[in-house]
Amino acid sequence: MPLKATNDNVLVVRDEATSELNGVFIPDEAKKKMHKGEIKTAGSLVSDKLIAVGKTAVFNKSAGFEISEDGVDYLVLTQRDIIAIV
Amino acid sequence: MPLKATNDNVLVVRDEATSELNGVFIPDEAKKKMHKGEIKTAGSLVSDKLIAVGKTAVFNKSAGFEISEDGVDYLVLTQRDIIAIV
Amino acid sequence: MPLKATNDNVLVVRDEATSELNGVFIPDEAKKKMHKGEIKTAGSLVSDKLIAVGKTAVFNKSAGFEISEDGVDYLVLTQRDIIAIV
Amino acid sequence: MPLKATNDNVLVVRDEATSELNGVFIPDEAKKKMHKGEIKTAGSLVSDKLIAVGKTAVFNKSAGFEISEDGVDYLVLTQRDIIAIV
Amino acid sequence: MPLKATNDNVLVVRDEATSELNGVFIPDEAKKKMHKGEIKTAGSLVSDKLIAVGKTAVFNKSAGFEISEDGVDYLVLTQRDIIAIV
Amino acid sequence: MPLKATNDNVLVVRDEATSELNGVFIPDEAKKKMHKGEIKTAGSLVSDKLIAVGKTAVFNKSAGFEISEDGVDYLVLTQRDIIAIV
Amino acid sequence: MPLKATNDNVLVVRDEATSELNGVFIPDEAKKKMHKGEIKTAGSLVSDKLIAVGKTAVFNKSAGFEISEDGVDYLVLTQRDIIAIV
Repeated sequence: MPLKATNDNVLVVRDEATSELNGVFIPDEAKKKMHKGEIKTAGSLVSDKLIAVGKTAVFNKSAGFEISEDGVDYLVLTQRDIIAIV
Repeated sequence: MPLKATNDNVLVVRDEATSELNGVFIPDEAKKKMHKGEIKTAGSLVSDKLIAVGKTAVFNKSAGFEISEDGVDYLVLTQRDIIAIV
Repeated sequence: MPLKATNDNVLVVRDEATSELNGVFIPDEAKKKMHKGEIKTAGSLVSDKLIAVGKTAVFNKSAGFEISEDGVDYLVLTQRDIIAIV
Repeated sequence: MPLKATNDNVLVVRDEATSELNGVFIPDEAKKKMHKGEIKTAGSLVSDKLIAVGKTAVFNKSAGFEISEDGVDYLVLTQRDIIAIV
Repeated sequence: MPLKATNDNVLVVRDEATSELNGVFIPDEAKKKMHKGEIKTAGSLVSDKLIAVGKTAVFNKSAGFEISEDGVDYLVLTQRDIIAIV
Repeated sequence: MPLKATNDNVLVVRDEATSELNGVFIPDEAKKKMHKGEIKTAGSLVSDKLIAVGKTAVFNKSAGFEISEDGVDYLVLTQRDIIAIV
Repeated sequence: MPLKATNDNVLVVRDEATSELNGVFIPDEAKKKMHKGEIKTAGSLVSDKLIAVGKTAVFNKSAGFEISEDGVDYLVLTQRDIIAIV
């Protein structure tokens, strides 16, 4: 992957399960479903060492915005948007 | 438990007593009842060493939001949301 | 007492004299009456060493909120809410 | 005096001259009159060593609020409310 | 190039592909297209060493404003506006 | 002069030329006229050593407020209100 | 020049080309024209060493305000208003 995150940015690729939740009817149960994605690159100003390339991040569903490169959709998060690592 | 909290996040599982209070009629006495939960994981940026896995946290009843993983509901708090440890 | 305050939180038990002032008619003289309470527990991030367990704190009457444990009502304050120690 | 200020709080007793100005007609000349008071106690987090017990502080007339103890009215200020020492 | 950025400013020259996106109809696919540009100068207060002259920066499409010098249009960004380096 | 400034406060006595500008018709030319005054006392938390007693300060015309002591009108400024020293 | 800037203030004299742009019709091309001026004095709290007396600063056109001394119009900027040095 050619992108290297700067600052405290973290770029993830959403898991299919969670990307499907966006923009469609969501039952109560599913609302609590965590949004997850694989961390592809993390900026050098990220201060929590758990947030590392290859790990799966759990994040707020309203966090971030998408960019696309070479046909891949990345979700741009900052360190604070990430709640946990699976 | 597979989740590891990042940043200054703290994930707790609510005590049954306090989760029952949500969304139902609450008499004056019960309003003061503290919301409590067992700390399941705490991020490495949490700076108060009292806030540790296995302890019971007391928190603001309006604090945090819920996520669910493997059928377990976790309440996502940050360090500041926690008032005391029992 | 089983509660241990976290962060810069301070838990006090109000003096009877000041708790009576809440929610009732308050003459001008009484308005200046300080609200006081005994400090039961103080978090490890409290940076003023005067604020210690067993001391009587003077605080803003609108500060904090109440929680109850084992039949005791505690007022939850943060360090900044405390004006003076008697 | 039994009160000991905490944090960056400063408790003063207003000079009679300036307390009379409150709530009455104030001519233009008097508006510039400084509000003054003797410093009775200063918190340990006050960082300007000029602000010390026994000195007379000059402060913004709208600053602070009053509390009363043993029949004495104290004005509660913070370090920033104090403009000068006489 | 005669301009030297100050503070944490970064001056880039937009790639043609992304500058064409501004002010014209943008289909859904294109909206995710990243805005990119070559970094021409970076201020000495920029704290991420990845952000360096000659690298291609990816940035928020609404970030920054344009200035022109010797017929060249520069986009003025600050360090935080840059998401990644290609 | 008996007043000693605290914190980052600076007390100046306005030059006659600039005090005359207040409250009267100001032509365009005069609007740019700088407001100046002699520094009478500067607090110990002022961090720019140029700001010293006896120097003439240039300041924003809308900055500060006046207090009077022993028949002298002082303008109370903070460090940030001072633009330059003549 | 008799003025010495304080704090993180920077005083510049606008280039004639850019001062002419103010208050008159500005075509699209000219809008991107950078506002420039020679730095006459910079405060000691300016932290970017590129910002030095005699250099030409590029700044936001809406930044700062003017003061005049001995018939010279100075534009008062702070460090952050300066984008680049030519």
